[in-house]
Amino acid sequence: MPTNKRILLASRPDGLPTDENWILDEQALPELQDGEYLVQNHYVSLDPAMRIWISPMKSYLPPVEINAVMRAGTVGEVVGSKNDQVPVGTFVSGWGGVQQYTLAKGKDMYPVDPKLAPLPTYIGSLGMPGMTAYFGILTEAQIKEGETVLVSGGAGAVGSMVGQIAKIKGCHVVGIAGGPEKCAYMKDDLGFDGVIDYKSENVYKGIRRECPNGVDVYFDNVGGEILDMALAQINMHARVIICGAISQYNKTDIYGPKNYLNLLNKRSTMKGMLVLDYAKDYGKAAREMGQWMYEGKIKSKEDIREGIENFNETFLRLFSGEKKGKLVLKVL
Amino acid sequence: MPTNKRILLASRPDGLPTDENWILDEQALPELQDGEYLVQNHYVSLDPAMRIWISPMKSYLPPVEINAVMRAGTVGEVVGSKNDQVPVGTFVSGWGGVQQYTLAKGKDMYPVDPKLAPLPTYIGSLGMPGMTAYFGILTEAQIKEGETVLVSGGAGAVGSMVGQIAKIKGCHVVGIAGGPEKCAYMKDDLGFDGVIDYKSENVYKGIRRECPNGVDVYFDNVGGEILDMALAQINMHARVIICGAISQYNKTDIYGPKNYLNLLNKRSTMKGMLVLDYAKDYGKAAREMGQWMYEGKIKSKEDIREGIENFNETFLRLFSGEKKGKLVLKVL
Repeated sequence: MPTNKRILLASRPDGLPTDENWILDEQALPELQDGEYLVQNHYVSLDPAMRIWISPMKSYLPPVEINAVMRAGTVGEVVGSKNDQVPVGTFVSGWGGVQQYTLAKGKDMYPVDPKLAPLPTYIGSLGMPGMTAYFGILTEAQIKEGETVLVSGGAGAVGSMVGQIAKIKGCHVVGIAGGPEKCAYMKDDLGFDGVIDYKSENVYKGIRRECPNGVDVYFDNVGGEILDMALAQINMHARVIICGAISQYNKTDIYGPKNYLNLLNKRSTMKGMLVLDYAKDYGKAAREMGQWMYEGKIKSKEDIREGIENFNETFLRLFSGEKKGKLVLKVL
Repeated sequence: MPTNKRILLASRPDGLPTDENWILDEQALPELQDGEYLVQNHYVSLDPAMRIWISPMKSYLPPVEINAVMRAGTVGEVVGSKNDQVPVGTFVSGWGGVQQYTLAKGKDMYPVDPKLAPLPTYIGSLGMPGMTAYFGILTEAQIKEGETVLVSGGAGAVGSMVGQIAKIKGCHVVGIAGGPEKCAYMKDDLGFDGVIDYKSENVYKGIRRECPNGVDVYFDNVGGEILDMALAQINMHARVIICGAISQYNKTDIYGPKNYLNLLNKRSTMKGMLVLDYAKDYGKAAREMGQWMYEGKIKSKEDIREGIENFNETFLRLFSGEKKGKLVLKVL
């Protein structure tokens, strides 16, 4: 008899989460009720925002409750169904959580086609990170041809897409990431115009070097001092998109951007965005992203790790930076 | 023979400016060349931004140079002219500087009518502070009827106008200021719906009390922790207008807003504004402001101090808060 292994939140971490903060639980598969279907999750998405969801602080979603299954995006296959709309064999994506099986009903999950793109792509460049990049850089930042776009976390799931979309739109794209391997990836594989290695150089000087005409759009995934160094070099009417702040999620004392007054000097805007607001337009965006991928204009890379029992260790790679591309946990 | 007494910048202050940072200089009046006119300044505007202009830091205007006349808005009368467009007896306003006479030419100054409004009004509610409020709250913040507008420095030159305009537009207006006198002024004279005395109460709790439906627009003149307390209580799609940060101008280590990530949670915008960008629309705005003043919908108060030799002492009142309304120095 198969069972469902799942990760429950045992306690809220203080700083980086440890194994103590999680429970690896195993339970029998549920009996299906009318309208329900059972999804065997193949891949679980590991995202920086998950660190926010396990903190007690108010955010855009309620915190994951203690003893609840950890919230996460998933993609998998329907292996049991009492729902005619979602027959066995359908591949679906949704908020399946960090577990091997998810009991779903109605429109909890949406269908995906494994023939059009590899399954992990549906929680990567065609999923939340891709949608975040698409709406963030196009709708929120309103990039124009010839502008300079600076993106932190430029080798990551969101940043790599932000930069590639900005390249398609004719921008000068500069990525910030840690280490020579990620910088080579941004430059050689993704086609960014300039790269800055925050682990080996002064980011302020790096921005100066790579953005000789200043920064029109800064897409921020990291926060902290890098945000300040970018704010110091914005142009008139710049748009600073606050997508995340991975450098701050494990801290109790948040670093506030001291250079925020440059928004006044430069009549610029700092704007927070959340992809969930764009849910109704995901379909259109995913089709365009898919087309760009098909045409080879956008490359997508997933770093696939295995085993639900390795969840915390794998999750921590988001914060140490020891990963290449979109981090995904195979739980099949 | 009349002379021109003027205030020159002797050195850049570290913290609050002292008498040591200024030179009170006296010189003979200049001979007029063709096209020039001589303005006897009646009133000099004292504004928080002047502290920025004497710091070495990059801002929206170049720093005032050492030994140059201190930059300031003025209003006065033309007392000599070799310019047919600007005859003797014309009242004019412009960047006259902290001095008793200004040599001007062409469109350096624009005419004002002392019969329509008292002269100090032209450097107050019908001048920069009024224009800042008008374009800040209407064009930048895009207030809508029924929204909650919170304004810091609510008894000051800009804040008092922001709140009154927002009241005209049907908003719930809450002002933050220091001391019972200013709070009574905002409530009783200006008609604000709620007031918060930052000198005698916790501002976070004050906002909670006076803005029961949260904050849709926060118009910030002060920066620092008050900005953070406001950011913590913004609603979805809030607009935070960065107009100034008087609490920070005398500091070397700027306080960055730690709660900036709430912009993401609330999909909100923090926007820097500068009134100079709206110069071409001042006329239209001043007419509407003038009409509101005539109808008694907007009250304007100037705190008029006398004597150019008292410049520094008077200027410091901006930072200690020891003033009532728009601070003006009579130099006639």
